[in-house]
Amino acid sequence: MIRVGVNGYGTIGKRVADAVDSMPDMELVGIGKASPNHTADAAADRGYDIYVPEGRHDRWAEVGMDVAGDVHDLIEASDIVADATPAGMGAEYRPIYEEYDTPALFQGGEGADVAEASFTARANYSEATDKDYVRIVSCNTTGLNRMFAPLHEEYGVERASITLVRCRGEHAVISADPVTMPSHHGPDALEVIPDMGPITTMGMKVPTVRHHFHGVNVELGGEPSAAEVRDLLASQSRIHVVDGDLGIDSGWELQEFALDRGRDRMNLYENQIFEDSITMEGPQLHLFQSIHRESDVVPENVDAIRAMMGEADAAESIELTNDVMGIGDI
Amino acid sequence: MIRVGVNGYGTIGKRVADAVDSMPDMELVGIGKASPNHTADAAADRGYDIYVPEGRHDRWAEVGMDVAGDVHDLIEASDIVADATPAGMGAEYRPIYEEYDTPALFQGGEGADVAEASFTARANYSEATDKDYVRIVSCNTTGLNRMFAPLHEEYGVERASITLVRCRGEHAVISADPVTMPSHHGPDALEVIPDMGPITTMGMKVPTVRHHFHGVNVELGGEPSAAEVRDLLASQSRIHVVDGDLGIDSGWELQEFALDRGRDRMNLYENQIFEDSITMEGPQLHLFQSIHRESDVVPENVDAIRAMMGEADAAESIELTNDVMGIGDI
Repeated sequence: MIRVGVNGYGTIGKRVADAVDSMPDMELVGIGKASPNHTADAAADRGYDIYVPEGRHDRWAEVGMDVAGDVHDLIEASDIVADATPAGMGAEYRPIYEEYDTPALFQGGEGADVAEASFTARANYSEATDKDYVRIVSCNTTGLNRMFAPLHEEYGVERASITLVRCRGEHAVISADPVTMPSHHGPDALEVIPDMGPITTMGMKVPTVRHHFHGVNVELGGEPSAAEVRDLLASQSRIHVVDGDLGIDSGWELQEFALDRGRDRMNLYENQIFEDSITMEGPQLHLFQSIHRESDVVPENVDAIRAMMGEADAAESIELTNDVMGIGDI
Repeated sequence: MIRVGVNGYGTIGKRVADAVDSMPDMELVGIGKASPNHTADAAADRGYDIYVPEGRHDRWAEVGMDVAGDVHDLIEASDIVADATPAGMGAEYRPIYEEYDTPALFQGGEGADVAEASFTARANYSEATDKDYVRIVSCNTTGLNRMFAPLHEEYGVERASITLVRCRGEHAVISADPVTMPSHHGPDALEVIPDMGPITTMGMKVPTVRHHFHGVNVELGGEPSAAEVRDLLASQSRIHVVDGDLGIDSGWELQEFALDRGRDRMNLYENQIFEDSITMEGPQLHLFQSIHRESDVVPENVDAIRAMMGEADAAESIELTNDVMGIGDI
């Protein structure tokens, strides 16, 4: 039984906590949370022990919410911590994890240098084996790597140009984010799959929620048919090739799709690749995929825990994670 | 003096009417408009004669707005009509233009077969010479062609993959539009510049207004530096390379930029290419550009009129249009 602490209980942390709590080989020690709000109340309802940062205990006492202890206690009591604190705070916590000799995994909001390896289960599970500090790359990079890994193994990825349209604008306009090339996603993908050709990612942001969209061009090392590429991608457990007959073409339809299928918190853990968009012209692959920003890295967190603890190989861990979380049931 | 009628007075039509009215070699006969709303009232304020479709005269009389006659009268009185009716209606009007032997130009909402040629001034001005029916391609395609033409002349366009993020979603989500590849823009660009390599355009729509954004990858026939490409693009009269020091990275900033410079109706007729995004790796060019959907085709309408009337060559027409409209003054 791996005793896991989840430090940070926001968008990613609450989903990682649920996933850890549901795994037969893991025990959720508790969560680290700073503010006693409705999310904390919901966590308590789920039976999760809550640990709070030093100096914050009074605020919890004021609203009458129970706490199990200090975040330092959580770190000490855990075999491993999944850090899901806000971007940049993970690096501040790393010395504290070291102080308690507790391995930790971080999210993609941290820089690559926060950890010894960057991780996507399908691409480089074994790189995390017995490491003390591992970073899960961001949701968009995770989605790219899941697509790149089988394409690179099967055909070779010679070059890619990808426009990432991300759901997080402030004004009701489109922004280049950043205006310079590439966005962090290309270099991050190469951290995980280093031997691909140049990967240029062009980041934009738009005022929407939940689902990012990628306009993808990959130059392959071969010239498979679109049907062959579709079949290869559809055979991947964390890719869902969206049947062209279903009439899904937007984040709105994907939300309805997830809700209709009873997915917890509207989660879509899999890359959603639109079947009708998969096109080949010579070695040039084009497709659209959508990434659910809240949930796609959650199974990667679970797998990274097992990899770092040396408890399972890639195939065993991915299968167990998928089975428990219902990944691939859509 | 070319006597020009503008049939349709929506987003494009009202700007085309203003542009025609401002040209020293053109006379605006009047506009065709169906509904007596605030836009019609503003047109009357500008002194434009208004012609209305058959069967609509009563509605105008009810609100006490004067009309100069029927749209058929406008067509008969004009040397040429710029059709800016809603998408698809231009094809319905074409037999009426033929009936009065009045040449007409159409907008990009019509199919290529509505006309004898598709048109972008910088790319194929002379194709419209002495033609009776010409189509201005859509705002995004016009923007692409202005970029492609100099790149193709200078280096050759071997291949391009472009994600077009368009400002017109209904729900607050991202949609693939269409989910299939390519969107109409790639084939339309090849209508105008036929000898380029494959152009794959991936269309999306998002819930924003005014400015489209393109994530552009072009494989060139040579390997110029980014600075050389920037200089080539900056030398084009309908491309504005946005100085990286100005801090412009979004549609919001572009709106403020246009307003601060006193541009009529917030018009940005030029492609806005972000200097800091222009990147070369081998023969692969990457850049971001933004297209103002309301106004970028307006100078093309003016130039097409001159080309079709055989009144000026490309250089003369483009220079006159730019000069009168203030294109290149930013």
